[in-house]
Amino acid sequence: MSIFKPINQKQAKGKVKKIFDDIKSSRNIKRIPNFWRSLAHNPEALERTWNNLKQIMKKGALDPVTKELIYVAVSITNSCEYCIRSHTLAAKKKGATDQMIKEMIDVVGIANQNNKFVEGYQVEVDKNLK
Amino acid sequence: MSIFKPINQKQAKGKVKKIFDDIKSSRNIKRIPNFWRSLAHNPEALERTWNNLKQIMKKGALDPVTKELIYVAVSITNSCEYCIRSHTLAAKKKGATDQMIKEMIDVVGIANQNNKFVEGYQVEVDKNLK
Amino acid sequence: MSIFKPINQKQAKGKVKKIFDDIKSSRNIKRIPNFWRSLAHNPEALERTWNNLKQIMKKGALDPVTKELIYVAVSITNSCEYCIRSHTLAAKKKGATDQMIKEMIDVVGIANQNNKFVEGYQVEVDKNLK
Amino acid sequence: MSIFKPINQKQAKGKVKKIFDDIKSSRNIKRIPNFWRSLAHNPEALERTWNNLKQIMKKGALDPVTKELIYVAVSITNSCEYCIRSHTLAAKKKGATDQMIKEMIDVVGIANQNNKFVEGYQVEVDKNLK
Amino acid sequence: MSIFKPINQKQAKGKVKKIFDDIKSSRNIKRIPNFWRSLAHNPEALERTWNNLKQIMKKGALDPVTKELIYVAVSITNSCEYCIRSHTLAAKKKGATDQMIKEMIDVVGIANQNNKFVEGYQVEVDKNLK
Amino acid sequence: MSIFKPINQKQAKGKVKKIFDDIKSSRNIKRIPNFWRSLAHNPEALERTWNNLKQIMKKGALDPVTKELIYVAVSITNSCEYCIRSHTLAAKKKGATDQMIKEMIDVVGIANQNNKFVEGYQVEVDKNLK
Repeated sequence: MSIFKPINQKQAKGKVKKIFDDIKSSRNIKRIPNFWRSLAHNPEALERTWNNLKQIMKKGALDPVTKELIYVAVSITNSCEYCIRSHTLAAKKKGATDQMIKEMIDVVGIANQNNKFVEGYQVEVDKNLK
Repeated sequence: MSIFKPINQKQAKGKVKKIFDDIKSSRNIKRIPNFWRSLAHNPEALERTWNNLKQIMKKGALDPVTKELIYVAVSITNSCEYCIRSHTLAAKKKGATDQMIKEMIDVVGIANQNNKFVEGYQVEVDKNLK
Repeated sequence: MSIFKPINQKQAKGKVKKIFDDIKSSRNIKRIPNFWRSLAHNPEALERTWNNLKQIMKKGALDPVTKELIYVAVSITNSCEYCIRSHTLAAKKKGATDQMIKEMIDVVGIANQNNKFVEGYQVEVDKNLK
Repeated sequence: MSIFKPINQKQAKGKVKKIFDDIKSSRNIKRIPNFWRSLAHNPEALERTWNNLKQIMKKGALDPVTKELIYVAVSITNSCEYCIRSHTLAAKKKGATDQMIKEMIDVVGIANQNNKFVEGYQVEVDKNLK
Repeated sequence: MSIFKPINQKQAKGKVKKIFDDIKSSRNIKRIPNFWRSLAHNPEALERTWNNLKQIMKKGALDPVTKELIYVAVSITNSCEYCIRSHTLAAKKKGATDQMIKEMIDVVGIANQNNKFVEGYQVEVDKNLK
Repeated sequence: MSIFKPINQKQAKGKVKKIFDDIKSSRNIKRIPNFWRSLAHNPEALERTWNNLKQIMKKGALDPVTKELIYVAVSITNSCEYCIRSHTLAAKKKGATDQMIKEMIDVVGIANQNNKFVEGYQVEVDKNLK
C-alpha cells in the first residue's frame, strides 16, 4: 500500500484536476498512473514535477526515445521497479525496439562494473581529462 | 595514488601488450589511459573488460553516441568522476554536442528525483505495468 | 521469506529475551517487529543495534520527530521499503503530520536531483566552502 | 575542472542575469556559487531548479533548518561533497548548531547500517506496516 | 513479470542452448534459473556473462565461499533481492555456514555506517594512505 | 577540510583519551587516523563506533582478512575513497595479498554488473529461492 492512498481521479479538484486533465490529453490516456495520483497529495509538487518532466523529456537535441532510455538507465542503477517498468513502456510507445532496450541494459551493466573498477583501483584522472 | 601503480606501457608484455596495442589502434591514441594501465595488474580482467567494452559499445540498434550518453548517465548516478570525465570526452569525440550533454544531465536529474518520489510515497506498480 | 526465519518471541531466551522485553516496554508494543526478530539470530548484533538506536534516536539537540524524518529520508535514498514504512510510522507516532512527511519527501527529491547536477557538471567546490 | 566552465556572473544576460540577481538578493550574497554558474549553461534548467529550490526549502510544516539537515543527510548518503559542504553551511547560516549536525550524522550512520541489515536478512514487512 | 518473458529452456537453440547445457552441467542442476533465462534474450550477453562469471568466481587466491560472500555483500549494499537470495544460496552450497553469513552481514552494516560517517565529517585521507 | 577540524590527540581528554589510547594499543600505532579524530567531536559516537568495530571485525567464523575484504567491497560499491584506502591497507596488514585484492575487485565488478542486469530485466525470484 502507498504511504498516502492515491487520489481518486474523479475526486480531483482545482490544481490537481487541471494537471490530471493535462496528463490525460498529453499522453492520450484515460487512467492517471499511480505515480501522479500519489503526488497529487502535494498539489504544488504535482504541478512542478509534471511541468518539469514535460519540459525535460520533449524533443530537443536528443530525441524522446533516447531520453526515455537514459531515464530507464538511471532507474535501473537506482533499482526503482516502478520507474523501470513505466519508462520502459514509455520508451516502447515512443518507438524503442526490444533490441534497443537490451543494448541499453548491456551498457548499464558494464558502466556499473567499470565504475567500480575505477573505485577499487582508485584510478587517477588522466591529465588530459582534468 | 592508485592502489596499484599503473603499468608503464613500455614495460607491457604478453597479453597486456597485445591489449594495449589493440586499445591504441582502435582508439587512435598513443597514451593508454590510467584505467587500462591499472587494470593491467590483472591481465585476465584487462582482456575481458576490453573485449566486453568493444562488443557492447559498438554500433548496434543504438548508435555509439547514445551508448556513451547512457554510460555517462549511469556514471553520474554512481558519482564516478573518472568515468564521467572519460566517457563525456568519448561521447564528444563520437559526435555528441554540448546541448546533447546538457539535456542528458537534465534527464538524469529528474529521473533521480522521481525515483525517490516513487520510494517516498511507496507508489504501487499500476496493473497495466505488471 | 527472510534469509533466517524470524525468532518466535515466545521462544526467546537469555540476551535475546532481555532485549525483546526492553523493546516491548520502551515502545509500548506487544509484538516484536520482524526486524528485531531477524536480528535475534545474532544476539550480539541485536543488543548492539538496539542500544545504539536508543542512544541515537533519543531527544537531543534534535527532537525525535526530526530524527525519524532524517532516518526516512536516508531510507528513501537507499530504496529500503521496510525502513521507509516502519520509520514513517514511527515518525507519525512521535508527532509528525502528513504535511511534514510530504515536505520531507520534496526535499529528498530535489536533493537527489541536485546531487546529480553537481556530478554531471563536475561542479568544483567554491573556495569559501573548502 | 568543471565539464562546462562556470559562467562569469558579469557576463550573464537575459534569463540567466535575472536568476543570478534573484539568487544574490534572496541569499544576500555577492558571489554566485559555482553550482548556479555551471547550471547557467542551461538557462531553462537554472530557472527551473532555482524556482523549485526556493519553493521547496522555504518555511512550511518543517522549518528551514530541518529541511537543510534532511538535504545534507541525503547528500551524505549519496556521497556528494559539494552538496554536503554547501548545505551544511546553509544549515548553519539558518541556525543549525554543531550539535545538531553531529546528531544528524549519527542518524544517517545508523539508518544506512540498518537499511543494509534489512536487505541482508531480507526482513519481510510486518503486516501492520503494509 | 519480467520485462522480457524468460526463455523456455526446452526451446533454447544454438548459442543459448550451448550455454544452458554448460550451466546445467557446471552447476549440476536441471532447471536454468530465471536470471540466465532472461539474459538469453541477448545471446551475446548471456555467453559473455556466463563465461566471465565462471572465470571470476572460480578458486584463486580467494576460495569460492569468500567470493560468494563478497558477491552477497555487494548485492546487499545495492539492495538486489534476487542477487542476495541466489548468491546466499550459492555460498551455502559451497560451504558457507549460517554464522559466516551473519558475520558478513554485520561487516556490511558497519561498513555502510562508517562510509557515511566519513562523508558526513568529510574526513581527509591521512597522509600515509595517499 | 573536514567539516569539524580533527581533534588533536594531545588535547584529548576523558572518554576520548581513553578510546584514543585503546586504538593506539590495539592497532600498535602512534598516530590516530583522521577518521577517529573527526568522530571524537562526538565522544558517544566515537566510543560506540570503536567498540562495535572491534567486536565485529575480530576473528570469528570469518577470519579478519576476509572481513576486511568484505569491508572494502562495500566501500568500493559506495565510492568511499577514505574507506577503500584505509581498509585495503588494513587487509594487507592482516595478511591479504595483492592477488586477493585484485580478485575481490573482480567480484565487486561483476556483482555490480549482474545486480543491474537483474533490475534491467526485472528478473523474478525463482520459486526455490523464495
